[in-house]
Amino acid sequence: MERREQAVVRVPSLDGVTRERFLRDVYPRREPVVLKGMELGPCTTKWTVDYLSEAAGSKEVKIHVSAVPQMDFLSKNFVYRTLPFDVFVRRAAEVKHEDYFLSEDEKYYLRSVGEDVRKDVADIRKQFPGLAEDVQIPEYFEKEQFFSSVFRISSAGLQLWTHYDVMDNFLIQVTGRKRVVLYSPRDVPYLYLSGTKSEVLDIDNPDFEKYPLFVKAKRYQCYLEAGDVLFIPAMWFHNVISEEFGVALNVFWKHLPAECYDKSDTYGNKDPTAASRAIQILDRALKTLEELPAEYRDFYARRMVLRIQEKAYTNDYG
Amino acid sequence: MERREQAVVRVPSLDGVTRERFLRDVYPRREPVVLKGMELGPCTTKWTVDYLSEAAGSKEVKIHVSAVPQMDFLSKNFVYRTLPFDVFVRRAAEVKHEDYFLSEDEKYYLRSVGEDVRKDVADIRKQFPGLAEDVQIPEYFEKEQFFSSVFRISSAGLQLWTHYDVMDNFLIQVTGRKRVVLYSPRDVPYLYLSGTKSEVLDIDNPDFEKYPLFVKAKRYQCYLEAGDVLFIPAMWFHNVISEEFGVALNVFWKHLPAECYDKSDTYGNKDPTAASRAIQILDRALKTLEELPAEYRDFYARRMVLRIQEKAYTNDYG
Repeated sequence: MERREQAVVRVPSLDGVTRERFLRDVYPRREPVVLKGMELGPCTTKWTVDYLSEAAGSKEVKIHVSAVPQMDFLSKNFVYRTLPFDVFVRRAAEVKHEDYFLSEDEKYYLRSVGEDVRKDVADIRKQFPGLAEDVQIPEYFEKEQFFSSVFRISSAGLQLWTHYDVMDNFLIQVTGRKRVVLYSPRDVPYLYLSGTKSEVLDIDNPDFEKYPLFVKAKRYQCYLEAGDVLFIPAMWFHNVISEEFGVALNVFWKHLPAECYDKSDTYGNKDPTAASRAIQILDRALKTLEELPAEYRDFYARRMVLRIQEKAYTNDYG
Repeated sequence: MERREQAVVRVPSLDGVTRERFLRDVYPRREPVVLKGMELGPCTTKWTVDYLSEAAGSKEVKIHVSAVPQMDFLSKNFVYRTLPFDVFVRRAAEVKHEDYFLSEDEKYYLRSVGEDVRKDVADIRKQFPGLAEDVQIPEYFEKEQFFSSVFRISSAGLQLWTHYDVMDNFLIQVTGRKRVVLYSPRDVPYLYLSGTKSEVLDIDNPDFEKYPLFVKAKRYQCYLEAGDVLFIPAMWFHNVISEEFGVALNVFWKHLPAECYDKSDTYGNKDPTAASRAIQILDRALKTLEELPAEYRDFYARRMVLRIQEKAYTNDYG
């Protein structure tokens, strides 16, 4: 099979963007941007492994542990384990482990959560109050729009699958380097979703036999250095590789009026209620079509697709 | 702009197909076929202009009259007029007219209808009982499946727009020659429908700027000679040019159980009730999506399309 090339677009970087400029020129465009030279507080210099271990201590954290760098949500090639925070940070920062769960070169990943994951959102000010003092979050949104602040720590090499969130997002890279690949919400037909996640795990060497349309997905890419902030608009797919051990904090906030969101959502990845309802109603329409034989169902399904494209797509049919 | 070529497929012909063979080998494939050598009765030799005029007399008929050969349902470049049948047949058979409505070379088209078009289907046995005796309709379906029999007479050159019907159809070419172009129901995304009709009127020289996807529609084509019967399965699009003055009869019959069809349908072109209901339900889903801003609506519309393709399309996503 011939080598197929995907289009690659560099995510633009902007330096020293003020709140005013962000809200006027960047935010309404609904496209990812790397914000450089932001005032993030002392975290960028203070957050060494020793300091983090000291500051957060032995508080227990639930982490992902994976024997391979590329986590796979389909085959579940990782496990959840609990460790004291200081032990976890040291393990995440080292490449070979003396103590380990799966293998001596296993990878670690923390995504902080609320006290009760079913009810509470992650908020660094509550779960890691000592560390929260070191961070100045760029508050480029109104206080009531705040949804959650998620502390993330990864081993070098760890790759998180491509997924989307329903909230707007500042990914604040405090220490370490990350490569982030993004895809537009428009390219959802080419991403082979399972829920909010793409089944195409190996985006650098995809299986085009299995995922032939993936070649059409336009790849946006950027490298985040310590101190960079990536704006990820709601529904933009992102795939993250931690090229070095690193600590990040991300802030999710509501772009839509608060009542649009699912009240039970603590992760920021449940579809807005109007979207969920629309999909439920669609399922009733598809149930009705089942009364017809396959060739009729196929024909009217195609007509329904045309109707959706005509009525609900923006601009083109791309 | 470069010349773009559409794929052309010849509609297969079969000779002397019995009812048994049709039902076993042809009908289940749901694809158009030209049936040759069918026993159609004396109509094929008897139906001259003089004979038709004599047999049907001066019964009034409502006809389409068009100043140009290519009828356009969008710009409505034709008018409806009423004439005595014998006068109409003579006019349809001649190229230049002494008496006319629009122009001396106007074209005529009769599509027979029931006594009350809102309640009664066309049935040649009722509207033209004298002529009905001359035709032996190939009854390759059960009596209770019969829907309508439509008498069609066209001037040489007249072209009827591409459309689909919801009933199965034998187009019996009694006299004259027709070119019929067909498109599969699967190609509906490329046909720019308005209701049951394609907006692409000039299929031989289409406006690819306006209808760029039309190039993807696979063109099936056949020429019907006097005595040929074309099987057009429900939902197959067809475009008909009468290359000569000609008389045809077509028989529509129900492929689905009777209760699947719209009881108020006298033309055989109202979608099965399950399909209409599904589209109505879809419209409620789209109404719900309207609560969201454009980029969210677009994203969830695309997800809905993927859901339809996954759940209701047959085989591929073509």
